[in-house]
Amino acid sequence: MKVQCLKGFRDYLPGEMLQKERMLASVREVFEQHGYPPLMTPALEYAEVLTGKYGDEGEMLLYRFRDNGDRDVALRYDLTVPLARVLAEHGNIGMPFRRYQIAPVWRAEKPARGRFREFMQCDVDLIGVDSAAADAEMLVIGAAVMQRFGIENYKLRINHRGVLSALCRKVGLEGSAEGDFLRILDKLDKIGEEKFRQEVSGIPGLDASGLDSVLAVVLDASSDPREVLSHIEKNLGSDDLATSAIQRMTEILDIVEAAGIGKYCQIDPAIARGLSYYTGLVYETFLDDLPQVGSVMSGGRYDDLVGMFSGKELPAIGISLGIDRLFYALSEMGLIETSSQPAEVLVVLFSEESAPASFSAASGLRHEGINTMVYPKAAKVKKQLQFAQKSGIPYVVVIGDEELKKGTVQFRDMDAGSQDEISLSDAVTRIKTGQTS
Amino acid sequence: MKVQCLKGFRDYLPGEMLQKERMLASVREVFEQHGYPPLMTPALEYAEVLTGKYGDEGEMLLYRFRDNGDRDVALRYDLTVPLARVLAEHGNIGMPFRRYQIAPVWRAEKPARGRFREFMQCDVDLIGVDSAAADAEMLVIGAAVMQRFGIENYKLRINHRGVLSALCRKVGLEGSAEGDFLRILDKLDKIGEEKFRQEVSGIPGLDASGLDSVLAVVLDASSDPREVLSHIEKNLGSDDLATSAIQRMTEILDIVEAAGIGKYCQIDPAIARGLSYYTGLVYETFLDDLPQVGSVMSGGRYDDLVGMFSGKELPAIGISLGIDRLFYALSEMGLIETSSQPAEVLVVLFSEESAPASFSAASGLRHEGINTMVYPKAAKVKKQLQFAQKSGIPYVVVIGDEELKKGTVQFRDMDAGSQDEISLSDAVTRIKTGQTS
Repeated sequence: MKVQCLKGFRDYLPGEMLQKERMLASVREVFEQHGYPPLMTPALEYAEVLTGKYGDEGEMLLYRFRDNGDRDVALRYDLTVPLARVLAEHGNIGMPFRRYQIAPVWRAEKPARGRFREFMQCDVDLIGVDSAAADAEMLVIGAAVMQRFGIENYKLRINHRGVLSALCRKVGLEGSAEGDFLRILDKLDKIGEEKFRQEVSGIPGLDASGLDSVLAVVLDASSDPREVLSHIEKNLGSDDLATSAIQRMTEILDIVEAAGIGKYCQIDPAIARGLSYYTGLVYETFLDDLPQVGSVMSGGRYDDLVGMFSGKELPAIGISLGIDRLFYALSEMGLIETSSQPAEVLVVLFSEESAPASFSAASGLRHEGINTMVYPKAAKVKKQLQFAQKSGIPYVVVIGDEELKKGTVQFRDMDAGSQDEISLSDAVTRIKTGQTS
Repeated sequence: MKVQCLKGFRDYLPGEMLQKERMLASVREVFEQHGYPPLMTPALEYAEVLTGKYGDEGEMLLYRFRDNGDRDVALRYDLTVPLARVLAEHGNIGMPFRRYQIAPVWRAEKPARGRFREFMQCDVDLIGVDSAAADAEMLVIGAAVMQRFGIENYKLRINHRGVLSALCRKVGLEGSAEGDFLRILDKLDKIGEEKFRQEVSGIPGLDASGLDSVLAVVLDASSDPREVLSHIEKNLGSDDLATSAIQRMTEILDIVEAAGIGKYCQIDPAIARGLSYYTGLVYETFLDDLPQVGSVMSGGRYDDLVGMFSGKELPAIGISLGIDRLFYALSEMGLIETSSQPAEVLVVLFSEESAPASFSAASGLRHEGINTMVYPKAAKVKKQLQFAQKSGIPYVVVIGDEELKKGTVQFRDMDAGSQDEISLSDAVTRIKTGQTS
């Protein structure tokens, strides 16, 4: 019998999960600071809600089956289609509608290192409004997440679908013909100019005479977003799509600068975002110190998607946090607590008889806001100290027969290796101030 | 096409989910205060991990199917069997092992009012120790949850499997013959003495001459747990199982009294808990003011269960919170925030041109720890005020052209209906102190 985790899936053991949970709690806090409440949708949906939404490749990855009532059902593949379903089903939801959702999604991908068939998605979306303010708000939230985690060196790289379409027009491509060109453009920084020219030359209908203008725009390396915008205007300004994209991005820059996050924002005309459903602003977030991690937060405006079920046009913009990438990056950068145990204090159980005294002391410590664990058994004190050491619990309180009589405790600082007989309230002070003695 | 939530499932819209998420955050906090970190296991398990664990009826309710790789898989039915699987698979997990898990489980039950096929379970368990301290800790955590929510009038009703087995022996039943008797005993307070006598009379092998002693024990209405224990001792004291159960419960009482929660604990020899896998302490929690809600936290010691895969004996005790019942009760008792919007302030977007000023003010408010939403579009101010009203956002800040020039804001208290032109920092003070003017 297979007593093991299902292939392609994984457990998050308490040590790692504690840190992940704390990270998620911080993210929720940031979302709520900006006026976003959570939404929860079921793990299972009618299959027909999900089919036809993710392309042929995506659809193959659905966990789809017949339930006990012979309904054709599937586990959710992302959080956007369920959001669209909720908006259509609960027609009286007021607009503008804000929500975040942090929840697992399931995709039967080929398992690979770091890729699992169940993973957490973390989306925040603002529905019902197409405005520079709505666009800018996503960048403000993204920057607030980074600030919350103490990340200072990163760039929000911004582009606009209008710029991309104008670039496509430069090479004679429009509408559905844009796809291949944009997909190759998105890889430009990986494959380089030569390979880019070579790959796009295979696109039917491509007017290669416009490629120099395109490359002049997308290879502009300026870090000053206003400069990039005027450079785009110089090269593409005659295109009406480019003009309105530049206008929108200018307004967005005005707002993000006023919100104090201008220094993190760069315009990058090469960012195409793989997905064809973006209709306006698009953005990705890269860490200066860990570029190899890839984008840790991405998103954009997708005005034609969430209205798919209701038939109404429903403008929408969202940002999606790459929780696993962000978690990895925070660990690498030492910006996440490494303790695998929430308790700051272990109260030793000296003997069965002294259990009430230990629990009384633990209650007192918790009352002071100190996370406290009581060792659940009267084992040898040495063993209990080893447990504290192994679990990374920094302080230990022992109440033996002598201490019980005198109303004191033995207070041990595990890192310092020091031990003193003091009152419980002095122990509280030491823990709160972090002083050794 | 069915654009609707799957039958038997439900969405939690942002208003309700915000409150639920906050409740869960409090519960996590309490668990961590006691030294419990979270565990996360996948939604899907190999079917053979789950089959044979929940009885025939339970097994019929599994969401079981073949995945794309033709594996026989099922959605988790509870959090206990996955815990047992984790303990067997990760053999080097140190003992004592503590974890909590808050996660949805799936059961294809017949839908009914308030019963859904996906619901949240919330379990905290302590593995590897059989001791009075471990038993008492569960009651301490349970009481801490209640305290965290401001619930003062409730009872932790406690019993011990040894008492129940001794009661069964009184009527000549032992081992597997206990089941039917205990199931009927568990209903005693609902069906009454007469119907109880009638129903148990059908049990094969029942020695009815012992029924009076049984009823003398279980109908003892004393609220003093020590009195109940001596009453049990008087009636069942010659039974070795009863003797050690009384001994254990006495030690537990010593501890919970020292931990300051003695007043919430009652011994109730009639509590049998439906599940046959309990081996020691069992408990349920009832609200004095809402007894009809049923037990909001239950659990017990189950020493033979989590070792099922590893073959090792692994003592365990746990408590399970009835999240939905507790949420309902807290709402009924007015102990949960009713705001459906996390924002305390709405910053109006007076015009497209003033968007930077609005975002700057919002950043300032958030910096002061005040959850702030910017209206994402330059709509009519009246419309934006109505939105604040409808969303339950208590304060509104307006920065029009005049205020922009003067460096002031219009500060509106929605409840008071007052509006004043003040500085942003004065607005911060008013929001933090809750004063109207």
